[in-house]
Amino acid sequence: MSDKPKLELSCPVPIGQYEQIVMAHGGGGRLMQQLLEKLVQPAFANPYLAERHDSAVFELGGSRFAFTTDSYVVKPLFFPGGDIGKLAICGTLNDLAMAGAKPLFLSVSLIIEEGLPTADLQRVLHSMAETARAAGVLIVTGDTKVVDRGKGDGLYVNTAGIGLIEHKLVIAPTSVQPGDAVLLSGDIGRHGIAIMAEREGLAFESAIESDCADLSGLVRGLLDAGIELHCLRDLTRGGLASALIEIAQTARVTVEISEARIPVREDVRGACEILGFDPLYVANEGRFAAFVPQEQAAGALDIMKRHPLGANAALLGRVGEDSKGIVTLQTALGTHRVLDLLSGEQLPRIC
Amino acid sequence: MSDKPKLELSCPVPIGQYEQIVMAHGGGGRLMQQLLEKLVQPAFANPYLAERHDSAVFELGGSRFAFTTDSYVVKPLFFPGGDIGKLAICGTLNDLAMAGAKPLFLSVSLIIEEGLPTADLQRVLHSMAETARAAGVLIVTGDTKVVDRGKGDGLYVNTAGIGLIEHKLVIAPTSVQPGDAVLLSGDIGRHGIAIMAEREGLAFESAIESDCADLSGLVRGLLDAGIELHCLRDLTRGGLASALIEIAQTARVTVEISEARIPVREDVRGACEILGFDPLYVANEGRFAAFVPQEQAAGALDIMKRHPLGANAALLGRVGEDSKGIVTLQTALGTHRVLDLLSGEQLPRIC
Repeated sequence: MSDKPKLELSCPVPIGQYEQIVMAHGGGGRLMQQLLEKLVQPAFANPYLAERHDSAVFELGGSRFAFTTDSYVVKPLFFPGGDIGKLAICGTLNDLAMAGAKPLFLSVSLIIEEGLPTADLQRVLHSMAETARAAGVLIVTGDTKVVDRGKGDGLYVNTAGIGLIEHKLVIAPTSVQPGDAVLLSGDIGRHGIAIMAEREGLAFESAIESDCADLSGLVRGLLDAGIELHCLRDLTRGGLASALIEIAQTARVTVEISEARIPVREDVRGACEILGFDPLYVANEGRFAAFVPQEQAAGALDIMKRHPLGANAALLGRVGEDSKGIVTLQTALGTHRVLDLLSGEQLPRIC
Repeated sequence: MSDKPKLELSCPVPIGQYEQIVMAHGGGGRLMQQLLEKLVQPAFANPYLAERHDSAVFELGGSRFAFTTDSYVVKPLFFPGGDIGKLAICGTLNDLAMAGAKPLFLSVSLIIEEGLPTADLQRVLHSMAETARAAGVLIVTGDTKVVDRGKGDGLYVNTAGIGLIEHKLVIAPTSVQPGDAVLLSGDIGRHGIAIMAEREGLAFESAIESDCADLSGLVRGLLDAGIELHCLRDLTRGGLASALIEIAQTARVTVEISEARIPVREDVRGACEILGFDPLYVANEGRFAAFVPQEQAAGALDIMKRHPLGANAALLGRVGEDSKGIVTLQTALGTHRVLDLLSGEQLPRIC
């Protein structure tokens, strides 16, 4: 990570004072938030972007649609539990699912570095195709660019997706209510640790595989059961902590969670300790947080636990009454601390 | 251009025999066609992709939509007549327009190389915003990634777009009919020459600016006038020749055009001669070919000529009776030659 020391300060230099883009501007933390708030959103200002959600939602011809995009620059291209192709398809399926949409159509755009082994490209394409097929979505349009050797890193992938919203809920940060239960769909930290282990050639006692997965089936299960979902957010760059902080800030609520309830596998916790990472901020690619009415929390948790991707689901806490826009963590010691956005990502190029 | 000498052969090595991706695989020519036919389409096989059109068209809830994506890796980021931001917005607007769709919503995804001057990013964002505003479309969702210094080239941009189809026509290669007139919306070659001049520091007598422009208004004019458009194609990578060859191959028709009718500005022609380029294969970013019924050709040409972007529009020729899937060019000398796809692009990273 090439962040300059000043990025470690608790009050980072605002984007206006950075004359150049640094790695942390893409890290899902405070510097990225500043980049979006100071540069991107003022330029493109419109109510859809202002929602600050994983997908844009719009109505056309009487139907509601979700639309989303992500570029993937993960390093390395292949890692335990997945590859850039599976990641790119799942990531876009998940962003659509987080708006409560049924994913329908995807686009795939490739930026290939000259010299990429054709066999690697073929492996990634097959992984994408298989993941899309399993999810019942079609890759209907695409693009291919090749850049000179030394101007890429093997392969970057962009996916965009369109989904159909077949219910009346508004699943977005703005729907979060005081009293809502905060649920987590499974144990956290596996994706980040799997990437880090592969990148650095680390071997742990047990193999830690990425949690990379398509969450749309699990979300559909909650919707089909009539759970009145208020907000969903997948826990990618910046991890659980950053996702909850963003929602708390946007919804102007206080989110109160308990550290003891957050499922982290023992091997992941051990790896985090060795590497100096806080699992709360480690990226996941198959986990999400759900805000649901308190009275439906037990039912929702039950549905999650019956799904293979939600076996370790947990009730983390609740939304408090005040409007501070913060997340408080009750630690294992019983003390409370306010979670803060990191400047950048502990692990750059995680997705 | 780093193509190996073997790429100059008239019968290039098939993709299966390339163990690595080469620049020409992204060049809009024969090697790119092989990459798509041998690797991408078999992996993702579905009827939408098989249409081989700039946008995918699908029906949902009684409405027809177009969906498209492109990544932009143009070098340099800023050039006479535009920049990567304007190019990325116009490119996606144009792909939607080529399906006869009214562009509505766009996504923007950035892959920024660490070290990009913040001022450059801001300039590109403003250019995107201005182009989108002028076209009446909203940028509703996006993504930002940062890659390490030396793993990008300043900035790569992906845009995806959704448009609404408000007519009953099927504007696609498969709708092309024998007897159709082949129209060109304006003079060709400016974008490629503008990029090349900027990249190589060449100065010509007059400044040659890119033709980069949003074509959706011009297409809407044709639709509003009741022109029964059979096929539209913008003339990007590979230029006019490659676009017509692709359509001829997909529609299994012979396209007969006359060299003398193809508008090329004198300064562009001169630059092409100096640089050794054939203007027929030079990329444009604000020009398209239209296939229309013979009896509507004069009316369509008239509408084009009244639009600022179609002032130099021309009737190039017609679709013949046989099904060879080729393009024939009547040269200025009166001879005929069959146009062939180049292996790659004369100018890599043109868009």
